[in-house]
Amino acid sequence: MIKSHGYAAQSSHTALQPFQFERREPREQDVLMEILYCGVCHSDIHQARNEWGGAIFPMVPGHEIVGKVLQVGAKVKKFKVGDIAAVGCLVGSCRDCSSCKKGLEQYCENGFVGTYNSYEKDGKTRTYGGYSNNIVVDEAFTLKVPTNLELSKVAPLLCAGITTYSPLRHWQVKPGQKVGVIGLGGLGHMAVKFGHAFGAHVVVFTTSPNKVEDALRLGANEVVISKNANEMKKHLNSLDFILNTVSAPIDLNPYLELVKQDGVMVVVGVAPEPSTIQQTNLIFKRRSFAGSLIGGLPETQEMLDFCGKNNITCDVEVIPIEKINEAFERTIKSDVKYRFVIDMKSLKA
Amino acid sequence: MIKSHGYAAQSSHTALQPFQFERREPREQDVLMEILYCGVCHSDIHQARNEWGGAIFPMVPGHEIVGKVLQVGAKVKKFKVGDIAAVGCLVGSCRDCSSCKKGLEQYCENGFVGTYNSYEKDGKTRTYGGYSNNIVVDEAFTLKVPTNLELSKVAPLLCAGITTYSPLRHWQVKPGQKVGVIGLGGLGHMAVKFGHAFGAHVVVFTTSPNKVEDALRLGANEVVISKNANEMKKHLNSLDFILNTVSAPIDLNPYLELVKQDGVMVVVGVAPEPSTIQQTNLIFKRRSFAGSLIGGLPETQEMLDFCGKNNITCDVEVIPIEKINEAFERTIKSDVKYRFVIDMKSLKA
Repeated sequence: MIKSHGYAAQSSHTALQPFQFERREPREQDVLMEILYCGVCHSDIHQARNEWGGAIFPMVPGHEIVGKVLQVGAKVKKFKVGDIAAVGCLVGSCRDCSSCKKGLEQYCENGFVGTYNSYEKDGKTRTYGGYSNNIVVDEAFTLKVPTNLELSKVAPLLCAGITTYSPLRHWQVKPGQKVGVIGLGGLGHMAVKFGHAFGAHVVVFTTSPNKVEDALRLGANEVVISKNANEMKKHLNSLDFILNTVSAPIDLNPYLELVKQDGVMVVVGVAPEPSTIQQTNLIFKRRSFAGSLIGGLPETQEMLDFCGKNNITCDVEVIPIEKINEAFERTIKSDVKYRFVIDMKSLKA
Repeated sequence: MIKSHGYAAQSSHTALQPFQFERREPREQDVLMEILYCGVCHSDIHQARNEWGGAIFPMVPGHEIVGKVLQVGAKVKKFKVGDIAAVGCLVGSCRDCSSCKKGLEQYCENGFVGTYNSYEKDGKTRTYGGYSNNIVVDEAFTLKVPTNLELSKVAPLLCAGITTYSPLRHWQVKPGQKVGVIGLGGLGHMAVKFGHAFGAHVVVFTTSPNKVEDALRLGANEVVISKNANEMKKHLNSLDFILNTVSAPIDLNPYLELVKQDGVMVVVGVAPEPSTIQQTNLIFKRRSFAGSLIGGLPETQEMLDFCGKNNITCDVEVIPIEKINEAFERTIKSDVKYRFVIDMKSLKA
């Protein structure tokens, strides 16, 4: 077994603390990575605090992982020792169902294996995430990292990046279209960058007047303060696509009214309450309300390559791992521009 | 002006009664039709009783109209006197917006003109529906009727038919797919016929065990009693498309769980309450929840032609107009297989 250490939640109501554990001995298709950076996703907090149920403790969170390859199994083709590699939200799936065969492992019909808070396909081996010094992953669930990007800023692409890239691609956002992004946080700021890179006219919807300047800097063409009904009205029936990146429970009906005929609103965050949708808002313009979950491995690689070519990364605040509990609190208050990333050098042996 | 008579609601709380009124003098692109049959749509009741608000009284309902051409304007090309013609839910639109130009007049960005309970584009001339002896309509909003079909059974195609045909076509239902139909009423029984005709495997969801036999007769491959959780479970993640034809407020989440990855559930009826949708039911399979409204003129003609070629009509119960108030009550109780149609011969001069 491989000795590992990192930070773990021992229960839903305790702060993250140093933790020693073991990972599986690398198999012939496995890659052993030294973790260099790991992003802090809001879902790490939800899971560590068991807000979604089903938490498995002790839990080492983290699924926005960039690292250096330390060891490769005999059958590994993608990497050699010393290469930079990345791991996102998934470390396994059945690889046999129709979703997996399409490279949509996130929709695996037999259930994917999460990077943490999950069990391997054997049904008993625990998975531990990236708030740690190393990780062992089947190369099928690893990704290559463009060499021109700053690694700390790459880490959050593995969740915040792909979660926004995938729906924008799936619903074919393109030049000439008008795209709305609700919320300007970790996900929202990436949606703005991608929407802009895809050539769309990007409209950011936010409740915070102090985010206007930043939204424009990130690539938005317009910013609407969503509390202002008159500003909202100007966009009635005009948006081809809206991505809701806010997981707080908000009334989506005023936004649905902004979607044009045959347009789509997509949610990527799970709110604590279900969405209440007026059927007329769908029926009278043949609008759709849809959901999207991260992205599959091929699309995640495509996204990273796209980011390399277009020099797109996340805006991050790098922290040492001792500040992780403070970072959780600040994330909850949206007090971060726009993602915390742990520099794993700070993790003492 | 053209003298007309029919049955009208004088207020939201009075029964329909005989009513005399006038229609516009036919213009050069207008068709004057003698109405032979008019279907009774549940929305006639909602509007006559002002359950959706905005009712204009006196109101002559009816938008499933089949008749004989009595007179044509100088520029009319589609018809000559004596031809059979049909009129559906729309009698006007701006004909200039992007929706109209695509033949999607039902989504007219400037508002369509309803066949009744509406105003002409002049903003003041009232429209009166098909529970009457005649109607004057711009030929652009008339339809040709296949000669091989029984006219009383054609009438409800103009609303119940196109409302189900359009979403099945738009979301490209095809052979090899599994299609769900929730509810077996006026709309539902047509969805079953069309789904079957398009080559799909049709599963009907109903709360009434006594509808099983009829559903199978109409073309369903399977019938699920939706109150039976075990029967529902057998279809988890398996349906490409579900059409919800029920406008009663039902929990759609158990049905969304039956939709497969990238599948769609479409609502065509407005329930008295909004739909409460669990975001996870959309996110974890990239499912969509959408709406659809009747159909545009080109698609309505396509639907009628398809029905002619495939010998598809509605199952109807023909009534004299004196029974219209009784028919309203029976429609509310779903005590009709599957649509009442008024034989306008019963309307005394």
